[in-house]
Amino acid sequence: MSDADMHPIVAQMMDRDAFSQWLGLDVVESRPGACLCRMTVRADMVNGFGIAHGAITYALADSTLAFAVNAQGQHAVSVTSTIQHLAPVKVDDVLTARAIPRADGGRIAHVDVEVTNQEGARVAWLTATGYKMSKTW
Amino acid sequence: MSDADMHPIVAQMMDRDAFSQWLGLDVVESRPGACLCRMTVRADMVNGFGIAHGAITYALADSTLAFAVNAQGQHAVSVTSTIQHLAPVKVDDVLTARAIPRADGGRIAHVDVEVTNQEGARVAWLTATGYKMSKTW
Amino acid sequence: MSDADMHPIVAQMMDRDAFSQWLGLDVVESRPGACLCRMTVRADMVNGFGIAHGAITYALADSTLAFAVNAQGQHAVSVTSTIQHLAPVKVDDVLTARAIPRADGGRIAHVDVEVTNQEGARVAWLTATGYKMSKTW
Amino acid sequence: MSDADMHPIVAQMMDRDAFSQWLGLDVVESRPGACLCRMTVRADMVNGFGIAHGAITYALADSTLAFAVNAQGQHAVSVTSTIQHLAPVKVDDVLTARAIPRADGGRIAHVDVEVTNQEGARVAWLTATGYKMSKTW
Repeated sequence: MSDADMHPIVAQMMDRDAFSQWLGLDVVESRPGACLCRMTVRADMVNGFGIAHGAITYALADSTLAFAVNAQGQHAVSVTSTIQHLAPVKVDDVLTARAIPRADGGRIAHVDVEVTNQEGARVAWLTATGYKMSKTW
Repeated sequence: MSDADMHPIVAQMMDRDAFSQWLGLDVVESRPGACLCRMTVRADMVNGFGIAHGAITYALADSTLAFAVNAQGQHAVSVTSTIQHLAPVKVDDVLTARAIPRADGGRIAHVDVEVTNQEGARVAWLTATGYKMSKTW
Repeated sequence: MSDADMHPIVAQMMDRDAFSQWLGLDVVESRPGACLCRMTVRADMVNGFGIAHGAITYALADSTLAFAVNAQGQHAVSVTSTIQHLAPVKVDDVLTARAIPRADGGRIAHVDVEVTNQEGARVAWLTATGYKMSKTW
Repeated sequence: MSDADMHPIVAQMMDRDAFSQWLGLDVVESRPGACLCRMTVRADMVNGFGIAHGAITYALADSTLAFAVNAQGQHAVSVTSTIQHLAPVKVDDVLTARAIPRADGGRIAHVDVEVTNQEGARVAWLTATGYKMSKTW
């Protein structure tokens, strides 16, 4: 997605987000409370088993939820997240992460992120709790 | 740490672990059930807030626990992990991760990982559940 | 639900499950991999804030997932669970818990449980990891 | 512990906390940010396997952390908690829960709770994230 099509807050975040750029993360959809990102697993992303390092899936999911929540206008950070690794991720897999808002009350946001591969199989599930600060974008 | 000083299983894992190499991860101590790793945060590891992406701390902690558990001899993978981000991590921070075994019963291992910075402040806490497969190293 | 309508493994578990009986848990649906339970919050289930103790929602969700997974035939126990409390639960609220299988590979089962109140509002979300033992029912 | 020895906020909470009373929870120590509670597992607390229901350990741990955090003065609720069940808990086991503060920044508190049995063996570990409201006790 070109910067022009992204939600302006997400475009601003991606500009500074050196690690999401390294990941080759593509923001496919972005609006307040929602986000869908995609990336392709490379050979420099593997762990000691030769499959994608768990942090790669975590990174994709965490960026996706950060974009979804911050696009609502307030600076928001991830406070605690639980990731379940459901199936191995291999080099050349194309991963899609979709943020699913669960609840939003005051300063606390609960968001799940589903990560699927090119065959539609779910490879990871992130359950995150974010905190919205008073500072706005 | 040179490969010669690492536990042989950990050395074998690090050789293939392209992502831990990208992180600049240094295995300071490694033995069955225990591991201590260190890394320095670089400018290409930041998120949209200009601080370390949550996945960097997750990656360091996840590699550290993988080394600790796999050094016990069986192939072991992370099944689910909860990470609490306790303080912002900045460029040039030197992070130390220490695996703390919590329980080890049959095929399931519970391991915590504490991540501290150069001032000794705790910046993250990972609580992980691993599964030991029948395959051995 | 009468015992006659329950899946036989679930009926056997409920017979011994003194705490689920204390909760007044009603098994509405039960089959291998799926379960739906319901209960009404009583005045003896509140915490220091006069709302339902977090353990009540946890208990309902945990029993529901135990029934769903054990009905598949193997003895299965909860290894780690993350519960998000999304809205306050009050005395006389009628809670419904529904097990949602996420993945099932070998000995590890990932199951989510959604807990809603009588107005259909989601009050809690449990993300659980279970371990299936070799022993069968 | 008699009410006279408890921290006044904890005594006030325990008075209303019908479920912790049902558990037979004894507040052994209580001060701002710290708490130690004890209870004995009864036959009416078991699950379908005849061991303590996971919600019993969760309840003990959750009450312990609520007392520790609320004794700091602000109303605080548990937002998300991860519990790891590390060893089976049996009828007549005497459980001790100890709150371990991990971080406390602004509105968010991270607290771990270790639960041990009468032999000193760790049976559960709770990692919790609480939110402090502006309302004070």
